[in-house]
Amino acid sequence: VHADDDDRVYQLVEPLHPADIADLIELVPAEERVGLGKAIAELMTGEVISELNEHVRDALFEQLSPDAVAQIAEQLETDDAVALIEDLDDADQRAVLAELDPEDRAAIEDALSFPEESAGRLMQRDLVAVPEHITVGNLIDYLRDNSDLTTEFWEVFVVDPAHRPVGACQLSWILRTPRHIPISDVMKRDQTLIPATMDQEEVALRFQKYALISAAVVDSAGRLIGQITADDIVHIIQEEASEDALLMSGAGEGDINQPIRESYTERVRWLIANLGTALIASLIIAAFGAAIEKLVALAVLMPVVASIGGNAGTQTMAVSVRALAMNQLTQSNTLRVLWREMRVAMLNGVTVAALIGGATAFIFEPMLGLVIATAVVINIITAGFAGVAVPVIFDRLDQDPAVASSVFVTMITDSMGFFAFLGLAVASGLVG
Amino acid sequence: VHADDDDRVYQLVEPLHPADIADLIELVPAEERVGLGKAIAELMTGEVISELNEHVRDALFEQLSPDAVAQIAEQLETDDAVALIEDLDDADQRAVLAELDPEDRAAIEDALSFPEESAGRLMQRDLVAVPEHITVGNLIDYLRDNSDLTTEFWEVFVVDPAHRPVGACQLSWILRTPRHIPISDVMKRDQTLIPATMDQEEVALRFQKYALISAAVVDSAGRLIGQITADDIVHIIQEEASEDALLMSGAGEGDINQPIRESYTERVRWLIANLGTALIASLIIAAFGAAIEKLVALAVLMPVVASIGGNAGTQTMAVSVRALAMNQLTQSNTLRVLWREMRVAMLNGVTVAALIGGATAFIFEPMLGLVIATAVVINIITAGFAGVAVPVIFDRLDQDPAVASSVFVTMITDSMGFFAFLGLAVASGLVG
Repeated sequence: VHADDDDRVYQLVEPLHPADIADLIELVPAEERVGLGKAIAELMTGEVISELNEHVRDALFEQLSPDAVAQIAEQLETDDAVALIEDLDDADQRAVLAELDPEDRAAIEDALSFPEESAGRLMQRDLVAVPEHITVGNLIDYLRDNSDLTTEFWEVFVVDPAHRPVGACQLSWILRTPRHIPISDVMKRDQTLIPATMDQEEVALRFQKYALISAAVVDSAGRLIGQITADDIVHIIQEEASEDALLMSGAGEGDINQPIRESYTERVRWLIANLGTALIASLIIAAFGAAIEKLVALAVLMPVVASIGGNAGTQTMAVSVRALAMNQLTQSNTLRVLWREMRVAMLNGVTVAALIGGATAFIFEPMLGLVIATAVVINIITAGFAGVAVPVIFDRLDQDPAVASSVFVTMITDSMGFFAFLGLAVASGLVG
Repeated sequence: VHADDDDRVYQLVEPLHPADIADLIELVPAEERVGLGKAIAELMTGEVISELNEHVRDALFEQLSPDAVAQIAEQLETDDAVALIEDLDDADQRAVLAELDPEDRAAIEDALSFPEESAGRLMQRDLVAVPEHITVGNLIDYLRDNSDLTTEFWEVFVVDPAHRPVGACQLSWILRTPRHIPISDVMKRDQTLIPATMDQEEVALRFQKYALISAAVVDSAGRLIGQITADDIVHIIQEEASEDALLMSGAGEGDINQPIRESYTERVRWLIANLGTALIASLIIAAFGAAIEKLVALAVLMPVVASIGGNAGTQTMAVSVRALAMNQLTQSNTLRVLWREMRVAMLNGVTVAALIGGATAFIFEPMLGLVIATAVVINIITAGFAGVAVPVIFDRLDQDPAVASSVFVTMITDSMGFFAFLGLAVASGLVG
């Protein structure tokens, strides 16, 4: 991007949707982003900025004054403004809040008072709530006469005098109904209410399960304080679901825009943990050092047993972590799922053992084939057990099963793999 | 569930939401599902059945006649009926289709003519489309007078005489506007149109990117043929995102309700593939058999080098697969991301190498410490490269990067781990 191309760049970018402009900024190398930002300064609306990747936005905000950030936040709806401000560090947050209009500041501070990743942070405060006694005609007139009402709503919430939700009404039902019908005859009484303190992952599961487009958020006294719409939930589900894959592999947040130092500290922790588990496996091998010296084929084949077990354990673990995340694996069916996975493991174990056992018997000697086949069966069954048990135990202890299960499952399958194979080789009299 | 408890069971289940009834059926052991189904036969509506896990539903359908399945399908909207019928095998599909009303059959056959997992299968045919010249008042009267119109719509689509979409109008905008205003003044002209053949994963990305609640589906001539709503997309996103974690671990579909035989065949393939890669590693070890016989510490430590590399490769691969799925990793920034991951790998490699190298030098001898440290650095950098390159290559070849990347990355890191460590041990003169 050259300085004299600014007009041309502007013309190219101008027709794009804010989300596309944000993507474009992310795709450009970091050092060219400032130049691009200057060329399209007028197009850098709050919407574009709220669509930007968190790390790209952080880098941008470091070059802006709190006043400029506050101006961007004021263009946005409460939930988007909160998402933007909650990522700042405490000092920057205070500086930006101080620059906001008192009304916006109050709304954002209120949202920030709810726990991170809770419904209270996600919700929009702007919504349409009406009393139970009005008619469809009254409602339509009210909507037409109040030009300061939001247009971002898909349901009208019906509340009692204490502002507690008593029903919800899809806009299509209102449009299909004659003016004289009372709203209480049109609304649906059983609606899904979201407590403001509910975790966003749980909110997303509710939206998914009950196929919601919007839902009312209530405070601890049951009063209506906001609404959450499906377009926000789509982001949450994407984040939460892909988070598990990254966490299981020990990749932390795993964002390609994350600063290198952060990626390093997130990942090196798990590599060091893995080093610890690998050393336990080494201790087991060292205990059988004399056997290996006598029969070097043991050293050649032992990684096969450990590797197959590790793979089988990862498979079962991925299934269990997902079932836990979807609330499909509960106390009532843990034993059933465990038994199911053990049977799959036995089938897998016998198949793989036959292959490797046969090949080993042919290349080396029959007894070594029998030893490796038995060790593979033992290790795959152990993997099936650990792949369910480890995530379930973490879940019962209120820990995220995706985070640390990998390290433990690998430790178990590596150790068991080496121990079963080398132990059986000695016990069978193959070596000295 | 005892026969004489049927009334009690019915009373307990009756107040539940269809999605909750479906969950309950899934949680009950398979052999008790028939008894439960009988007790709550009247509550087993099409909605409950369409919420059931695919495998639980298949088992249920095996006990039902095509006529009974057709009756269930007729209670549902087109998209849900299609989801239900597309899972049946060909013979059952034909039998059920033959029992349907001609009109429903035509709609479902039409949907089935689109590729699996395409927008054409996901969409609802029922929608509200109006010509451009009418006013808000005309539209409201039309909606009130036509009682056979759907109520499941969140936007009204405005079409030209050839039935091509020219705009879309949120219901809230219609409710906020006086009757005499033309609809063309209220509608938004630039809307996101979904071609019927678009893959559902791409559809979901559009919904996420542009924060859509509903979108028009068009045929190859650009005519409006259906709509997709955000509540369906929420399911797709959950499936697609958690699918990647399962695919990367080689767990296939990874559903705890899947029949054991299916889980076995899906998983054993990857275990056998893993066996192949482990044997390549074994060949490398075998080539250094003489060195291991002389210095058994090599056998003790070599799994550490391979394991750390495998872990680092999995981390980078998880990050790359996610970035590819989110369209964040494209041709224009592949080299930048590769370079970024190499730098993270160097930092990780140096840290881990210092730890293991120091410990080895202390326990065994300094030269072996230097050898293992160098091998770890080489293997982690190789892992960083392969973790980006392998998924990107699969993606360029139009293969799903989540499916087979694991096997290749593990093969590369295992082989390189053993080769670098044992090769350096020999080259450094540590052994013979």
